[in-house]
Amino acid sequence: MKKKRILSGMRPTGRLHLGHLVGTLDNWVSLQQEYDCYFMVADWHALMSEYEEPSVINEYSIDNVVDWLACGIDPKKSTVFVQSEVRAHLDLFMIFSCFVPLGWLERCPTYKEQLRQVETRDLNTYGFLGYPVLQAADILAYKAEVVPVGEDQLPHLELTREIVRRFHTLYKTEVFPQPDALLTKVARLVGVDGRKMSKSYNNTINLSDTEEEIYRKVSVMITDPQRIKRTDKGHPEVCNVFSYYTIFAQDRQKQIAESCQSADIGCIDCKKMLADRIIERLKPIWIRRRQFLNQQEEIKLILKEGRQRAEAVAEKTLQEVRQAMKI
Amino acid sequence: MKKKRILSGMRPTGRLHLGHLVGTLDNWVSLQQEYDCYFMVADWHALMSEYEEPSVINEYSIDNVVDWLACGIDPKKSTVFVQSEVRAHLDLFMIFSCFVPLGWLERCPTYKEQLRQVETRDLNTYGFLGYPVLQAADILAYKAEVVPVGEDQLPHLELTREIVRRFHTLYKTEVFPQPDALLTKVARLVGVDGRKMSKSYNNTINLSDTEEEIYRKVSVMITDPQRIKRTDKGHPEVCNVFSYYTIFAQDRQKQIAESCQSADIGCIDCKKMLADRIIERLKPIWIRRRQFLNQQEEIKLILKEGRQRAEAVAEKTLQEVRQAMKI
Repeated sequence: MKKKRILSGMRPTGRLHLGHLVGTLDNWVSLQQEYDCYFMVADWHALMSEYEEPSVINEYSIDNVVDWLACGIDPKKSTVFVQSEVRAHLDLFMIFSCFVPLGWLERCPTYKEQLRQVETRDLNTYGFLGYPVLQAADILAYKAEVVPVGEDQLPHLELTREIVRRFHTLYKTEVFPQPDALLTKVARLVGVDGRKMSKSYNNTINLSDTEEEIYRKVSVMITDPQRIKRTDKGHPEVCNVFSYYTIFAQDRQKQIAESCQSADIGCIDCKKMLADRIIERLKPIWIRRRQFLNQQEEIKLILKEGRQRAEAVAEKTLQEVRQAMKI
Repeated sequence: MKKKRILSGMRPTGRLHLGHLVGTLDNWVSLQQEYDCYFMVADWHALMSEYEEPSVINEYSIDNVVDWLACGIDPKKSTVFVQSEVRAHLDLFMIFSCFVPLGWLERCPTYKEQLRQVETRDLNTYGFLGYPVLQAADILAYKAEVVPVGEDQLPHLELTREIVRRFHTLYKTEVFPQPDALLTKVARLVGVDGRKMSKSYNNTINLSDTEEEIYRKVSVMITDPQRIKRTDKGHPEVCNVFSYYTIFAQDRQKQIAESCQSADIGCIDCKKMLADRIIERLKPIWIRRRQFLNQQEEIKLILKEGRQRAEAVAEKTLQEVRQAMKI
């Protein structure tokens, strides 16, 4: 049976961190067994927020791909490419833009939320309002049937489905599948300060960090605020460090919880053991990361082949679109 | 001295008519002596209004270019091309979109006016709001220094100039000239019913009409409503037919005005003489039109060469833009 197709992407706006690993990349790696995966460096989407300092996009595009590969994305199984290198994305974006009512975008809940939340950037731009239209173009260029999303991204996917329906109604030709959400049970990883892990909070543990950096960052992680002295009994259920155990050291979870509650183990030792485990998890990634960093030509080749594969599919879709619209 | 560059375009949404001839094409033909002209089939802009029936765009793209050539646009002097065939337009459009504040577009007076005026189409779309951003991309892709505009288009050109200033401020590199308006004294031609000449009013005299059609259309033109009988004295200053004399038969203008005011000439004869003059003006255009219609391969070649010339310039601009932005 033909594998279903998946489209997913990341915005190259910074170094990838543990949140990306457990929230997205682990998922991507397992998806590529079952699906025909298209993984995209979403550089146009990155520009929408980074237009004041766009040089970061170049800086991190390759670096992110290196991390993808190091984490197990296999370019023989999956198509890895850069959004702006495949022309059909902008053509489809423009075509959809012409029939997408402004109200659909203005009313999009994620749009309003982002405008409220993001304080470091002025997102009151024409481009940012069109964010989900470009996403629809990304997904539909490959006729992806499945899109892995978190719950907060569901409104965007629904907009893609609305665009499909409107296209089919206007041009009386069925060109696209209505893509389904693959809701991913995302392991939510907090940053070292207990807030959401994000580079803008400067609280990340990056995939490219060294052993020393990881020991240092874990050592300053905020723990149970009520456990002040070594002899105080701890409360794992409110401890950020313990929440990491549930992801990176599940086998020790029960034992650590008990030792913490009985004050048999102190935070320093607990953190040291966690850092060991994170490092253990990252070591094979580091080895592959270093290999790929020394093979820039190889990375370029992977992206070139990815572009060619992506282009072939997307151009074919664009042709069908033009045919349906008689343009 | 190097000629200044001009960018202008037309949306291929229907057959060209006398309004286009005296309002735009005559002007284009004379501009190409003095300027380095880029004349563009604005098919993306056409899609913004014609998305419900986009097949007209294909239908009229070539037909309009045939009219341009028949009216005297010389592809040896000027670059004639199709907007959607030059990729850099959409790239620049996307780049500018990322830093153009929504407010600039929402407050644009022509935008609000169009939304109010156009009743046959739903223009409340994301794409249509970005109309002037795409125009800016068109103009700036060629670093056009001069843009021929009617007064109603001045706000759009001002938006292009604002985009230039914002780009230079954001990326601290001067890439673009701030294009100047070349205000064209447009001969305003009314339609045969006295309203603005427009295909949506079905009141046009097309460049491709036959002699018979022209006699017929002129014969039903609305004249001085107070001149009911042949013996009534006429008032040329309120007569649509007379307004055509001021454009197509200036040498007879004075004489006709007198004969009308004294009821020496009747409307039927007056119209017949006007139709003769229009036909006289169009005959050489018809001959060249017919030649070009028989040389579809030649037209394709002209557009291909135009695309190549346009692409070379626009790609160079895009490279400078990417360099300035470090993307």
